Amino acid sequence: MRDVSVVGIGQTKVKEHWDKSLRELATEAILGAMKDAHVDHADALYVGNMLSGELAGQENLGALIADEVGLRGIEALKVEAACGGGGAALRVGYLAVASGQFDVVIVAGAEKLTETSNCLTTASLAMAADGDYEAIHGISFVALNALLMKRYMHEYDLVPEDFAAFTVNSHANAVNNPYAMFRSAITVEQYKKARDISDPISVMDSAPICDGAAALVLMPTSRLNGNGARAIKVAASASGTDSLGLQDRRDPLWLSAVEISSQKAYAQAGIAPKDVDLFEVHDAFSIMSVMSLEAAGFAERGRGALLAREGQIGIQGKLPLSTMGGLKARGHPVGATGVYQAVEAVTQLRGEAGKNQVPDARVAMTQSLGGVAANAVTHIFVN
Amino acid sequence: MRDVSVVGIGQTKVKEHWDKSLRELATEAILGAMKDAHVDHADALYVGNMLSGELAGQENLGALIADEVGLRGIEALKVEAACGGGGAALRVGYLAVASGQFDVVIVAGAEKLTETSNCLTTASLAMAADGDYEAIHGISFVALNALLMKRYMHEYDLVPEDFAAFTVNSHANAVNNPYAMFRSAITVEQYKKARDISDPISVMDSAPICDGAAALVLMPTSRLNGNGARAIKVAASASGTDSLGLQDRRDPLWLSAVEISSQKAYAQAGIAPKDVDLFEVHDAFSIMSVMSLEAAGFAERGRGALLAREGQIGIQGKLPLSTMGGLKARGHPVGATGVYQAVEAVTQLRGEAGKNQVPDARVAMTQSLGGVAANAVTHIFVN
Repeated sequence: MRDVSVVGIGQTKVKEHWDKSLRELATEAILGAMKDAHVDHADALYVGNMLSGELAGQENLGALIADEVGLRGIEALKVEAACGGGGAALRVGYLAVASGQFDVVIVAGAEKLTETSNCLTTASLAMAADGDYEAIHGISFVALNALLMKRYMHEYDLVPEDFAAFTVNSHANAVNNPYAMFRSAITVEQYKKARDISDPISVMDSAPICDGAAALVLMPTSRLNGNGARAIKVAASASGTDSLGLQDRRDPLWLSAVEISSQKAYAQAGIAPKDVDLFEVHDAFSIMSVMSLEAAGFAERGRGALLAREGQIGIQGKLPLSTMGGLKARGHPVGATGVYQAVEAVTQLRGEAGKNQVPDARVAMTQSLGGVAANAVTHIFVN
Repeated sequence: MRDVSVVGIGQTKVKEHWDKSLRELATEAILGAMKDAHVDHADALYVGNMLSGELAGQENLGALIADEVGLRGIEALKVEAACGGGGAALRVGYLAVASGQFDVVIVAGAEKLTETSNCLTTASLAMAADGDYEAIHGISFVALNALLMKRYMHEYDLVPEDFAAFTVNSHANAVNNPYAMFRSAITVEQYKKARDISDPISVMDSAPICDGAAALVLMPTSRLNGNGARAIKVAASASGTDSLGLQDRRDPLWLSAVEISSQKAYAQAGIAPKDVDLFEVHDAFSIMSVMSLEAAGFAERGRGALLAREGQIGIQGKLPLSTMGGLKARGHPVGATGVYQAVEAVTQLRGEAGKNQVPDARVAMTQSLGGVAANAVTHIFVN
């Protein structure tokens, strides 16, 4: 397989984009990435998206967006893995370049969750869970995560405040990210006072409903010409799965898909967790950050929350997390999020993260989850 | 890139499966393909599907189905390209094997269109078209094809009966296919008397709303062991796109995406249209068969319908079409159809097509379209 590099990145601001359609958001991100990469053509486009059918009555996004950005004719497909669709689209784009099939590939993630009522969006997000055994009983996606968080706190004797540092960190990092939705720092006191969504998950434990698009241009590392200096290598691309339904898991407090995809990725990149300089974790809910840190090998079982309490997750810490605000504060346009994470990893490895620059960042890991980590797609980038 | 072969096939009967869920249909097809391939494991699963979210409230089908068939943990993603999702999933599965990433890959297509009212299904199928410029005006997907057919008949001075032979052929071939939905031959007289759906398209020009699942097992050709004798090589895998909206096309009577993907496929396989022994065409509507034959290089422009009139499309003809019944008579569970086509091509090249066996079949072509050929995915198989 050929080595693959990211040669261009683009993104829109994450917010409630009442004035822009999904195709406009995707176009803005893709044209930005193409300009950044100094390319005016591509061989293929892979789009990550979860809910354009349910919320906007639009499928076939691959062909739609390829045409919209002026690339009518090229291969263009949509890849879906619920909230992990962005990572999944990158995975397919990676295969298309690594295989030798294509030399210039665009990966985009685009999602517009505010197209309709929040109520319908919440119902649609539950399609990431098991429809026949979970959603049919009326449980929402946040409620499934709340069940996990409650059990986790019980099992390891924690209180909600033990999760506060993740949210405080994400918000602090978002302040300096012009593309982030919530550019406001918060305190532990504010975290503690936050309104519950689904006990014990409060608005401060949960990523917002929002819109956005992000894009990458991939090329074979061996064919980099002028843009080689800013190219960042994809050192690993891997994914794994678990049951959709929590009730089907032997051990609901362990994210097997995260473990599988992380271990595959470490093996491919030839690194260990200790070599990772920053981790764009899927912090859709605080509990997902904590459990991901454990399953990905950064913390012992039951001790993921301690990492944050010990101050290791800040920009200057041992393992900087969510360096541009993460899902919680940059925002979580679900099928786009995995691509945002990659854009941010590349920004860090290029040394272009401004006030949020992780010192001497050389190895960045991103992880995009679908469902309650029923899908986990992991990428490792190296400069 | 490595050569890729199909080593196993599986399929469910196509019909209104009121008693089986989508996951059950997919499981039946996949376990059938694994048994046929003599494998009890796979490295990855790619699922083609269009409307499970809209009609059954279920996304994240990759992980769901991987778990259901006993392969929890493996990479599993959904690929969507409207009605061309089956072909698109095969395209991604092909890349995963050709790249060297995986040695055993399952490609499945699964769709359940009768999960809800036909009215909602019809509305959902319009999501294959341009939502903001076509569907929003209330036009259905069949109506878009009707516009094309009307214009085509006007331009080339044809009458509806000129399309009859395609439907007669598909129904004749379905009689001998135990998996087909309509196992009844029809006459030109019956075609002429059929009820209109959207003038000039009658029920006899249109594929039915139905359910089904099909699956393939792919392996690198170089690693075939015991099952090499029945393995069929994928000689080409290619796709192309066009605008979603018909109003955006310079020439609405020419399927550019079909031309692009066919030409790429011929080049990869090193063949010309005359070398194709059978063609599983995307006959969702008669007009799509006719226009596909032209854009794929089998007929001159405006003369696609003549092929059928001259009797060349039968099993013993020069270019056998829809040899197991096609979308019209085998049935068209949209996101599964592209995989059914591949299963049928492999059946023919193995010499296992029974009464429908194309004599000395060596080269088979399949083409899976999304939208009004906004997406076209072409595969060529060689034994």
